[in-house]
Amino acid sequence: MHRRDFVQQALLGSAALAAWPRTGLLRPDGAFIHQTLRVNGERLNGWLTAFDRVGRTATGINRVAYSPADLEGRAFTLDLFRQSGLTPRIDAAGNIVARVPGTRADAKPIVIGSHIDSVTDGGNFDGPVGSFAAIEVARTLAESQRRLVHPLEVVVWQNEEGGTYGSRCWAGLVSEADLDKVARSGKTIREGIGLIGGNVAQLASVHREAGSVHCYLELHIEQGGLLEKAGLQIGVVQGIVGLRWFEITITGFANHAGATPMDQRQDAMLAAARFTVAVNDAVRRVPGRQVATVGRVNVTPNTTNVIPGQVVLTVDLRDIEQRTIEQFTQTFEQLGRDIGAATGTQFRFSRLTDSKPALADARVMDLVQGAATTLGFTQQRMPSGAGHDAQEMAHLGPMGMIFIPSVGGISHSPREFSHAADITNGANVLLQAVLAADRALD
Amino acid sequence: MHRRDFVQQALLGSAALAAWPRTGLLRPDGAFIHQTLRVNGERLNGWLTAFDRVGRTATGINRVAYSPADLEGRAFTLDLFRQSGLTPRIDAAGNIVARVPGTRADAKPIVIGSHIDSVTDGGNFDGPVGSFAAIEVARTLAESQRRLVHPLEVVVWQNEEGGTYGSRCWAGLVSEADLDKVARSGKTIREGIGLIGGNVAQLASVHREAGSVHCYLELHIEQGGLLEKAGLQIGVVQGIVGLRWFEITITGFANHAGATPMDQRQDAMLAAARFTVAVNDAVRRVPGRQVATVGRVNVTPNTTNVIPGQVVLTVDLRDIEQRTIEQFTQTFEQLGRDIGAATGTQFRFSRLTDSKPALADARVMDLVQGAATTLGFTQQRMPSGAGHDAQEMAHLGPMGMIFIPSVGGISHSPREFSHAADITNGANVLLQAVLAADRALD
Repeated sequence: MHRRDFVQQALLGSAALAAWPRTGLLRPDGAFIHQTLRVNGERLNGWLTAFDRVGRTATGINRVAYSPADLEGRAFTLDLFRQSGLTPRIDAAGNIVARVPGTRADAKPIVIGSHIDSVTDGGNFDGPVGSFAAIEVARTLAESQRRLVHPLEVVVWQNEEGGTYGSRCWAGLVSEADLDKVARSGKTIREGIGLIGGNVAQLASVHREAGSVHCYLELHIEQGGLLEKAGLQIGVVQGIVGLRWFEITITGFANHAGATPMDQRQDAMLAAARFTVAVNDAVRRVPGRQVATVGRVNVTPNTTNVIPGQVVLTVDLRDIEQRTIEQFTQTFEQLGRDIGAATGTQFRFSRLTDSKPALADARVMDLVQGAATTLGFTQQRMPSGAGHDAQEMAHLGPMGMIFIPSVGGISHSPREFSHAADITNGANVLLQAVLAADRALD
Repeated sequence: MHRRDFVQQALLGSAALAAWPRTGLLRPDGAFIHQTLRVNGERLNGWLTAFDRVGRTATGINRVAYSPADLEGRAFTLDLFRQSGLTPRIDAAGNIVARVPGTRADAKPIVIGSHIDSVTDGGNFDGPVGSFAAIEVARTLAESQRRLVHPLEVVVWQNEEGGTYGSRCWAGLVSEADLDKVARSGKTIREGIGLIGGNVAQLASVHREAGSVHCYLELHIEQGGLLEKAGLQIGVVQGIVGLRWFEITITGFANHAGATPMDQRQDAMLAAARFTVAVNDAVRRVPGRQVATVGRVNVTPNTTNVIPGQVVLTVDLRDIEQRTIEQFTQTFEQLGRDIGAATGTQFRFSRLTDSKPALADARVMDLVQGAATTLGFTQQRMPSGAGHDAQEMAHLGPMGMIFIPSVGGISHSPREFSHAADITNGANVLLQAVLAADRALD
């Protein structure tokens, strides 16, 4: 089905009208708008405000997975589930899951959720916004006595920031070796899962098959500044960008900073600087939303009066198109050859990480966009530059994400902030998208 | 006196002929050349070869001041003094000094020498060449029974690489606080001086007044590649460059490397890279031998997936002209403002070190150049980009230095090397310059 037709059917056509929540009205332009079914934004934002004290330190929110603050946050969240009429359980992977049965016995579940763990010195919005909005959506549905055709699963994933562990367990992508990795809390993933009430011996029990999920929807703060800068309310996420991490070793020759003339140097830091500038220029020269970052730079011998003999730096390259990643890989390698030749240095490239883009489902994007449009919100389509549990859930079924603005584009920082109105808007889009998806994706 | 006339007088004029060593001949072009008084190059290079085992490790020569290898090197050197008929003593600063009386009782001394301590993982030529050549010059004079008008002092300075401590004591520039600084050996300067036979309680006894030295001459390897590249045998040193060390703190804003669009970043590393390239371009654009090096770069948080929020880097700027240092200081500060404005970052400059150029005496340069020319060596005038004990001795009297080529321009490295023929040439220039200075500088 053509996408536009599909949305029209879902939102406006006769089938959609039958499927759409019954209380509502048609706007003069023909759009159908549901008047009564809205989340309780005040309640949702009240939860977030109360949650701000959990893991709050002088340097930011510190709710890293498996830490005491993470446990406290999970207890807080379990309480929210319960007071919202949901019955939460801890699955074997340590995720908090509540299931609301649907009207059709054999229907696949609609899954909504996010995470509550934070990075070190992070903020209170990355994760909790989507987690609490999912609870609020389920509560709104329950309070309005609206029962979906599909089961609704509300999930708060464990240890998203450490590597989307909870959702990766559902996708069957966590290995025994992964379980032995040490998380930021100092505990292994294995120990951490046990600590939060999971059971690694039963990990296979949470693994779901591809195609077993009706759709997955996640509300999240943007973490960048595109929406705020454009003055838009909602981002319709096209997917999570693919990522390639390069580690580049630049070898020159360490020599005396005073006695070596400028034209006789093999200065690895000068080469690294030229490369850093050239990578930035190359990525900005081409239209698109690709990003590249030189984030880690280690200089040898790193002494004021010695020309650097070696620099090891990293480039973090991301785009929603794998083709773009491949093209810039070529560009960067060519820059390394050219700058190496010009500076008498050698560039050696290796890769630390390589993950492919996780695309949102085209139909789910249309549903999210339709919901936002119907609610009267300004919006645009955009990739997610950050990783999310949604990228793992894309293995199990159609996936979509909803972004709301981050003030100043700041995240992973104590200065991370989103306005209450935007959070409410996002939760309402999530609610409307769930309702539309319940009728439209089979 | 005009410099050219002065040299002609010293080398060719009637007064010079009277003063010049008596055995010699006039070349067809009128230059007077001394035939018999030459150093024993084989002996000198034999000493250097034997010395190569002292402090030799798998990673280079490690003869850092006050280390066991330094002590072993000093014992080796004391033995050279003695077998050369010199009577060495350890002065209160720990320098090895031998004095050969002159024929005129009230004459100020001619001082020649260098050092034998090395950097970590250094080579066998930086220091020992000039130290052993000074001993060889005194020995040659003694063997030829040539007595100078002026006393000749042969000095092997202690701890040159750690900050020209031995010669700074002569210049009265070592403070009590300096004595408490910790040297690379792990010992304080105070402890080190005691260990090598000095006596810090008597340190004032080594302090000499300005004007108390007839002249100071030091032979040294170039440590850069100018002479080798130009195919020249001798460098007539114009002085030791002035040096200014900047520490520059660049503050941007750390943010998510995936979610932050390229045009919304305040990337401190990008700013640092642009600055590094711009400093290099600026210094190379202007004719001259000024050098600038970004040698130390520390990035925060230095993580692959975070846009750097802060970079602290150093610039080492050197030139023989103080005016040039002031001009580039202005240039760098302007670059900081411009690049800061362009990248949304702030540059804060501070200075770690500031030392003025130590100029060679014009008459001494002429004598060195005359000696090199007379001996038939190709030569050029050039600054020393590296620091030397000569810079301290410039406080006490006319100073000059003689450079010989460093293969590949490499120093402070196990790959440091100078050819035996060049070392012999340098020692002969030192000998001839001492003889000329003995007659010419009063």
